[in-house]
Amino acid sequence: MLTEVTVGQLRKIVGEANFRNDPESLIAHSYDATPMVQALPDGVIYPSSAEQVSAILRLCNEQRIPVIGRGAGSNLCGGTVAVEGGIIMVMNRMNKLIEIDQSNLTATVQPGLNTKELHMAVEALGLFYPPDPGSMVVSTIGGNIMENAGGLRGLKYGTTKDYVIGLEAVLPSGEIIRTGGKLYKDVAGYDLTKLLVGSEGTLAIVTEAILKLLPAPKYKKTMLAMYKDINQAARTVSQIVGNRIIPSTLEFLDNPTIRVVEDFNKIGLPLDMDAILLIEQDGGDETVVANDIEQIIRICYEEGAAEVKVAQNAQEADKLMLARRSALSTLARIRPTTILEDATVPRSRIADMVTEINRIAKKYNLEICTFGHAGDGNLHPTCPTDARNEDEIHRVEEAFAEIFDAAIQLGGTITGEHGVGLVKAPYLEWKVGTAGIELMKSVKRAFDPNGIMNPGKMFAKQSRKRVVVQR
Amino acid sequence: MLTEVTVGQLRKIVGEANFRNDPESLIAHSYDATPMVQALPDGVIYPSSAEQVSAILRLCNEQRIPVIGRGAGSNLCGGTVAVEGGIIMVMNRMNKLIEIDQSNLTATVQPGLNTKELHMAVEALGLFYPPDPGSMVVSTIGGNIMENAGGLRGLKYGTTKDYVIGLEAVLPSGEIIRTGGKLYKDVAGYDLTKLLVGSEGTLAIVTEAILKLLPAPKYKKTMLAMYKDINQAARTVSQIVGNRIIPSTLEFLDNPTIRVVEDFNKIGLPLDMDAILLIEQDGGDETVVANDIEQIIRICYEEGAAEVKVAQNAQEADKLMLARRSALSTLARIRPTTILEDATVPRSRIADMVTEINRIAKKYNLEICTFGHAGDGNLHPTCPTDARNEDEIHRVEEAFAEIFDAAIQLGGTITGEHGVGLVKAPYLEWKVGTAGIELMKSVKRAFDPNGIMNPGKMFAKQSRKRVVVQR
Repeated sequence: MLTEVTVGQLRKIVGEANFRNDPESLIAHSYDATPMVQALPDGVIYPSSAEQVSAILRLCNEQRIPVIGRGAGSNLCGGTVAVEGGIIMVMNRMNKLIEIDQSNLTATVQPGLNTKELHMAVEALGLFYPPDPGSMVVSTIGGNIMENAGGLRGLKYGTTKDYVIGLEAVLPSGEIIRTGGKLYKDVAGYDLTKLLVGSEGTLAIVTEAILKLLPAPKYKKTMLAMYKDINQAARTVSQIVGNRIIPSTLEFLDNPTIRVVEDFNKIGLPLDMDAILLIEQDGGDETVVANDIEQIIRICYEEGAAEVKVAQNAQEADKLMLARRSALSTLARIRPTTILEDATVPRSRIADMVTEINRIAKKYNLEICTFGHAGDGNLHPTCPTDARNEDEIHRVEEAFAEIFDAAIQLGGTITGEHGVGLVKAPYLEWKVGTAGIELMKSVKRAFDPNGIMNPGKMFAKQSRKRVVVQR
Repeated sequence: MLTEVTVGQLRKIVGEANFRNDPESLIAHSYDATPMVQALPDGVIYPSSAEQVSAILRLCNEQRIPVIGRGAGSNLCGGTVAVEGGIIMVMNRMNKLIEIDQSNLTATVQPGLNTKELHMAVEALGLFYPPDPGSMVVSTIGGNIMENAGGLRGLKYGTTKDYVIGLEAVLPSGEIIRTGGKLYKDVAGYDLTKLLVGSEGTLAIVTEAILKLLPAPKYKKTMLAMYKDINQAARTVSQIVGNRIIPSTLEFLDNPTIRVVEDFNKIGLPLDMDAILLIEQDGGDETVVANDIEQIIRICYEEGAAEVKVAQNAQEADKLMLARRSALSTLARIRPTTILEDATVPRSRIADMVTEINRIAKKYNLEICTFGHAGDGNLHPTCPTDARNEDEIHRVEEAFAEIFDAAIQLGGTITGEHGVGLVKAPYLEWKVGTAGIELMKSVKRAFDPNGIMNPGKMFAKQSRKRVVVQR
């Protein structure tokens, strides 16, 4: 609970209207896009400048009040839920696209800027900001930075981290630091820029970012390959890359996902197929893109594809992409609660991972649909369920614990792009070990000695015990 | 000084022959490639496994003995000089290329592996590891990782950091941690991988690394553009990128450098030119590469190039590249001491930076030759001088301090790829601020509470006072 004095001090910093603690505001900010996690904050604050952020943090640090930064709240790890109370700091008043610098190929942005808006602004100039998380229509760049958001283009273009080259950030002490710059090379000290990217609001609040841009690829071709056997699809993925072709998108949908997507969208997906690969290539030259697609088609058939469809125009391409882009929202329709995970494995192990997911789903008597970024091994096993069914939810939890364990045993990780946050904190130790956890906690203390930045996230009070799985 | 007991303990860990403290060994490891910095270590140790590294660090941590990791000692920042004594840990027994994984496009290596050797091994398979520091013929991957080595391909392909996706590292406590994996996406906790890259041996010893590889570009074209006015060359750089072309190499040589290089190499460089750009484009398609080069030629002439030469074959290309690759070694011939710096600015500011360098050289009555990676703003102002001439060396120091200051005022940094080490530590605060320094020191303490890892590097006992420069 905040005292009246504190509320007065906060209001003085941001103005009367920009601090709220009415029940509606608190409830509206008690949850994010993650199912089944909710907690009431003590207040919601809307700063408009780095100086205001600094004043707020200084005050909260003195009074040991938790601060939880928030963009659009579209994260899937409970990353912006105020589990220990405190203040939700919403960055949507700091949403300016400050500058696009065409000779240095950079964009300077405030954290509240909408991802899609940035895409459109740079694309209008023939430029390109590759990270395209599923939530990009609503998400903010600040949120993308804090979660190191990925997306469909990760294989060829990398993730948010690869494009953040400079930051302005406010430390819990209120100090404002600047890292990097409009620089492709900078080795002056430790790389605080990349450390802050993906730090999930646990170290500092980002108030400005310099992003690297690329020239936009001029041509794009989209295709779909259908398989009666999921192993053929998995082998195709390895073979494409093995043939030294890196597609801009290389996505995977399994049969349960195909059925659900087709049922809702009626785009003509074949219900009898075990797996679909959705493949896109882009580039600066039409012939090169066409050649890559031709080679990919050959590889698909060699590996046993039953059918291959190539989009003949942009409309057809959009229709094919819809199959993948709508997967989550469509799956979310079928039952009240949708648990979406992002266990990730080396690309060569995706067939093994899907086999494991299906075995585990069967063991726990659950429906798990799997789709995701096959090209970079980042799969999204998704379980449509019902939060009110206690027994089933318990089985879902057990199943996902086994899925995380399987991913790690295959050389993978518990989260490829969604973040640890609240929901995966009990499993972090499985990936990074006790020494890794202790080291990360020390890094956290270096930034935030009083533990006010998004407390309760990333590090669990108790790590979950790992069950040795018979396989 | 090490006690006899400690020496015995160290010999027990690595075997009699792999610890040395004879005067020859100590002197041979008292310096690296950096001029004018030298200090005798107390011993030199050659571990052959992570377990040995762990045992050594645990012992040294208990006894507060400094440990300085060393690859080939080719760094240019005094990074491996034992300024506070202690043990030089040479990684050259751990020099295996453990695996090239062709379906995941990764190489797993030990830190002592030679950079050029890795290049050749992956290129033989049609793969590509882009980072190509000037020292790559002698340097090791471990050294490249610790310094975040750059090179000529930074503009298009990034630096070492962009290719390190997993590490095994030993903490000063002796704990062995593993970060990342054969994974393009991994957000499980803070990004310790990228934090360790560029940490200059001050946090941990890397004992294994997983590197990301690319398919090798099949075609390459090399050209040279010559300018009577350096500003035309600088504008060309901005225009090429402004036209949405990212060459694989975009290098710059100023007139003093041209003269010295031509004098020694006799490759037909024009002595009356103010500046030369050396440009290379690569790619998967011959026509695309040729088109890019054609457009670049047009831009060069539009911006006022006096002459453009395109290499007609690989031999001619090698000859043109020699002009750039030999710049440092040739400059090093003309006087006994060569001070090479790497002040870096946003690409759009390179003309301003070269103007500043020339003004400063004149002010201090020095010869400063400038060459470097124009495409990413990473310039190498180089001063041939003589360490025995105290007055001149003092002027060199003053001049470089002004050059660092100018770089920062132009939005740049004190070091783009060489590292802070010993020689740039007094200037780090100019780039990152007092809060930045304090934060980095806390991060250091999180890894190395007893301060045994490469002490005296990165953080200076006293930051240099910044002189307000009249301009």
